Amino acid sequence: MSVYTPVTESELSDWLRNYSVGRLVALEPIKSGIENTNYFVTTSQGRYVLTLFERLPEAELPFYLDLMAHLARHGIPCPAPVADLSDRYLQSLKGKPAALVTRLPGKSVERPGARECGELGMLLGRMHLAGRSYPAYLENPRGPKWWRLAAADLDRFLDGKKKSLLQAELQFQAGQRFPELPRGPVHADLFRDNALFDGERLSGVIDFYFAGVDCLLYDVAVCANDWCLVDLASDPSLDGARTRALLEGYGAVRPLTDLERAAWPVILRAAALRFWLSRLHDFHLPRPGVLVHAHDPEHFRRILEARIGAAAPAIG
Amino acid sequence: MSVYTPVTESELSDWLRNYSVGRLVALEPIKSGIENTNYFVTTSQGRYVLTLFERLPEAELPFYLDLMAHLARHGIPCPAPVADLSDRYLQSLKGKPAALVTRLPGKSVERPGARECGELGMLLGRMHLAGRSYPAYLENPRGPKWWRLAAADLDRFLDGKKKSLLQAELQFQAGQRFPELPRGPVHADLFRDNALFDGERLSGVIDFYFAGVDCLLYDVAVCANDWCLVDLASDPSLDGARTRALLEGYGAVRPLTDLERAAWPVILRAAALRFWLSRLHDFHLPRPGVLVHAHDPEHFRRILEARIGAAAPAIG
Repeated sequence: MSVYTPVTESELSDWLRNYSVGRLVALEPIKSGIENTNYFVTTSQGRYVLTLFERLPEAELPFYLDLMAHLARHGIPCPAPVADLSDRYLQSLKGKPAALVTRLPGKSVERPGARECGELGMLLGRMHLAGRSYPAYLENPRGPKWWRLAAADLDRFLDGKKKSLLQAELQFQAGQRFPELPRGPVHADLFRDNALFDGERLSGVIDFYFAGVDCLLYDVAVCANDWCLVDLASDPSLDGARTRALLEGYGAVRPLTDLERAAWPVILRAAALRFWLSRLHDFHLPRPGVLVHAHDPEHFRRILEARIGAAAPAIG
Repeated sequence: MSVYTPVTESELSDWLRNYSVGRLVALEPIKSGIENTNYFVTTSQGRYVLTLFERLPEAELPFYLDLMAHLARHGIPCPAPVADLSDRYLQSLKGKPAALVTRLPGKSVERPGARECGELGMLLGRMHLAGRSYPAYLENPRGPKWWRLAAADLDRFLDGKKKSLLQAELQFQAGQRFPELPRGPVHADLFRDNALFDGERLSGVIDFYFAGVDCLLYDVAVCANDWCLVDLASDPSLDGARTRALLEGYGAVRPLTDLERAAWPVILRAAALRFWLSRLHDFHLPRPGVLVHAHDPEHFRRILEARIGAAAPAIG
């Protein structure tokens, strides 16, 4: 689905002469993914992922690649960009910006339990601590500014009820700025399919191409809204045990501040809003040439309504 | 043998709070090694080696750690130093400079065949290409200057025959400078026990604490003098098949220049001389407090004599 730019073995073998990773053994297109062209690359040295960046602004790519390199050298199991012989992470291939990153072991877990949510929480905490010394800055590209632009684009597609929900939530969030929440680089898209488990160990966090600087709690809320639902299909409320495991795992590494505990219900709503908006956008305004099975936007509308309706889930 | 500075689990758990590598699971002293105190460290995240630097000049440590980090991010399977939360590779523990590096899989091969020698050659070639963009400089600390100092220290311990051999070789080498040989960071100690194989794949090159800048061919010669002997105990001449595999593997990645082909017999002798001298030094002038089973210096005397006596092993 997502190979926009085909690469042959012969083209890749030539290109790999820019690197110190040995000779090409196998090349396999990766079907999932939306934004980029991805291949699994196996060489005599190891296993890698080749990414050709199709749509991301080239000026933002160093933020993502350097962040992954930063986190990897702090022990976070994320893809480590491989530097080429000129010592650069960003190369070009077939006229596209391209990078080679390490491929991590493990596979994603469709139905995580409290144990996996606890592991995820601890890893998020460590990732946020390690990210503190990362010097580059890119504002979360799916933050409040983008919400308002996306809402304006979507206005003509929404019925009255959805329009009201959206406007009410935008208005609510606009009154809820928390300038004192701890901020830093966040993954911002750590859904279950972006985490790999090797047995019980969380062996990889992948796909940093929505990362940006935002409040750290936002990352936890994005995870809760995907990992901790009582039932994906029928009940978007938060499962107590898994949510507790996520928050306790996180808090064991980076204890939440009082302000963060107070902000939790609002940030959960913000995280639901962001994905409702992007799924509406992908559904009603698909980008030309992007062959993607759009996720049902209704899923995140239900999550947002559940968070609005919930008694504020206190963090004890 | 080589734990000069004991570290308890409790001390290490505290110290690991400086890092993003998860909680301590196991700590195990590493018995081999001479220069440093080493432990295997297992955390909830991964497997690491902790090194407390006992004797290396602290000013030189960044050269080694940054070199490993540089090579690792170029895809060379060497220990990658883990950065602490302040973004430094070099920390301190129990009053000693200390670093945490990734632990590589695999184990060393006692009796390598041509296949392993070929793998080694290719990896050396890739390591040298990747090292070209490494900006720091440290002269090979066991180069010609050190040879002359060591020879002077050893003079009173050697019988007439060895003294003559040593003086003759020092004089020969002094007349053989090759300023045009390609130079760069070299491992300079890549004996069989510093290479790890995971099945047929060379999965790790370890112990960079003798690295320095020297002619690249010197690294190949150090390897030949250990990996390619016809028989460790009884025949120090070079095995044709394994030596060819080493050189062809290397040359497939970084073709040797004509000057290097011509210099090969001389550099083989230089590499033999260096280890004969250091083994004599360890044997006759052991450093106080260094509990090490000194290698028999005679082994490298026999290698040196074999290289001197050999018809120059042409590189075809």
